[in-house]
Amino acid sequence: MHVETLIGDGRDRIERVLAAHLDAHPCPDARLDQAMRYSVLGSGKRLRPVLVYAAGQVVGADIDTLDAPAAAVELIHAYSLVHDDLPAMDDDDLRRGKPTCHKAFDEASAVLAGDALQTLAFEVLAEQAHPHSAAMIKTLAKASGRRGMAGGQALDLAAVGHKVTLEHLMAIHRHKTGALIEAALIMGGLAECAPGDPRLDALTRYGQAIGLAFQIQDDILDVTGDTAVIGKTQGADALKDKPTYPALLGLDGARDKAQALLDDALDSLSVFGEAGEPLAALARYMIERDH
Amino acid sequence: MHVETLIGDGRDRIERVLAAHLDAHPCPDARLDQAMRYSVLGSGKRLRPVLVYAAGQVVGADIDTLDAPAAAVELIHAYSLVHDDLPAMDDDDLRRGKPTCHKAFDEASAVLAGDALQTLAFEVLAEQAHPHSAAMIKTLAKASGRRGMAGGQALDLAAVGHKVTLEHLMAIHRHKTGALIEAALIMGGLAECAPGDPRLDALTRYGQAIGLAFQIQDDILDVTGDTAVIGKTQGADALKDKPTYPALLGLDGARDKAQALLDDALDSLSVFGEAGEPLAALARYMIERDH
Repeated sequence: MHVETLIGDGRDRIERVLAAHLDAHPCPDARLDQAMRYSVLGSGKRLRPVLVYAAGQVVGADIDTLDAPAAAVELIHAYSLVHDDLPAMDDDDLRRGKPTCHKAFDEASAVLAGDALQTLAFEVLAEQAHPHSAAMIKTLAKASGRRGMAGGQALDLAAVGHKVTLEHLMAIHRHKTGALIEAALIMGGLAECAPGDPRLDALTRYGQAIGLAFQIQDDILDVTGDTAVIGKTQGADALKDKPTYPALLGLDGARDKAQALLDDALDSLSVFGEAGEPLAALARYMIERDH
Repeated sequence: MHVETLIGDGRDRIERVLAAHLDAHPCPDARLDQAMRYSVLGSGKRLRPVLVYAAGQVVGADIDTLDAPAAAVELIHAYSLVHDDLPAMDDDDLRRGKPTCHKAFDEASAVLAGDALQTLAFEVLAEQAHPHSAAMIKTLAKASGRRGMAGGQALDLAAVGHKVTLEHLMAIHRHKTGALIEAALIMGGLAECAPGDPRLDALTRYGQAIGLAFQIQDDILDVTGDTAVIGKTQGADALKDKPTYPALLGLDGARDKAQALLDDALDSLSVFGEAGEPLAALARYMIERDH
């Protein structure tokens, strides 16, 4: 299967799954309902759900068992974008080519929409009747809370305007973006593998490598990309004096680093043999993307 | 056991349990860690954990099985206070007699601390090895998300400055505060009872009655209470033109309504016989409180 088909199928499927979850239960406040839908439906790369589906495919999981973890990880990602864009945080006006949630609605709606999207992520996982449901919830909570994504966003905010070392920058990104990408791989694996299965270790290593590579590529695109293509303001990081890989390593150094991580990701897939190809194709695609 | 002992024991126990959860895993960012501890430890009525422990006691649960649901529901409550106090929401400077989180730290830290406290609530429930863990997570997510607390806060914000009917006000409070109090009772019950056990229905009815009664008492205290005793600015609701029960029913009418709900709560406990006394004592205490 061509990688664009893999991604397109995953995007179509997760869009339907997310819409079904938002439709499933009435929300008493129409504006909150709209702010949640605005923040989740209709756009986005859907990288994390695509990784959940691909990881599940590689370990032989039934695709129906992957919808809940795929939706949950995307709901966490969507909530984090809504909150990170707030004026008190990164203060962004544009996201995925549209006004950010607090611009399209208001700050209170954006805070609440983010809050309720996070809750929905855990609700979706608890509602599925899957023997590894608790393990998935543990994985997602660890990756997205103080030890993971939220901790990384705090580290990132604290680093703005300061000189940081490469090690410090990698720690920020391991928490802020890497942890959730790694969790997507593990959760897809958990749809088939029991906790402790060595295939989960391979998926973890793959996830760690591409998670960091993805962030480096994001930083590179912030320098070289086009606002219309990347869907957010080009050069925004540099304007805010945010530490980035190109700033620390130079553009070529950052590209070399991304390539080395890609090699490591591909190497980690060797245990799967031919079956690992969907994840290999995705890793290559992510490092070569222009948006 | 005297009700003050019941409450005091519950408060002491949940303080230790919450501190242990915050100590258990390192947070990479010291400021986020401090903002979370500031928002959770050292103060608060601990009504919801006390209700979890009392509900568990009434159905005969082992107290060790109640720590996780008690901590989880208090973490959700704490996160909601941090976010509700934000300038974009209720814009409060004082909470539990201390500066609110965004005043003591900053808005970004308050957004992130609330986010990570919510995540920790679900992590605590997923980490316990309990056969009804998924049922507890479902109960907590339903009560705290768009269908519950977050939806209620959105309804509440939308109602400020508008004339609302008694029915509308009750809908706001059923979602905003009632749902989580009801969840505390059900989660305590789930520590012993399997989903479907009729004792959970009795706890649900009790929780619905005291949840609304508690809010009416809060509104009454906002009119009659002393800022130093209630720990937040007296008259704050009236100043913001917030709809309240005393405004709609008069002070005596609001007191009558609270008394009728107390009677219903006590009636719901009849299935437990003598064993229901801890919850009966708590219900009476909540309606007679002055803070």
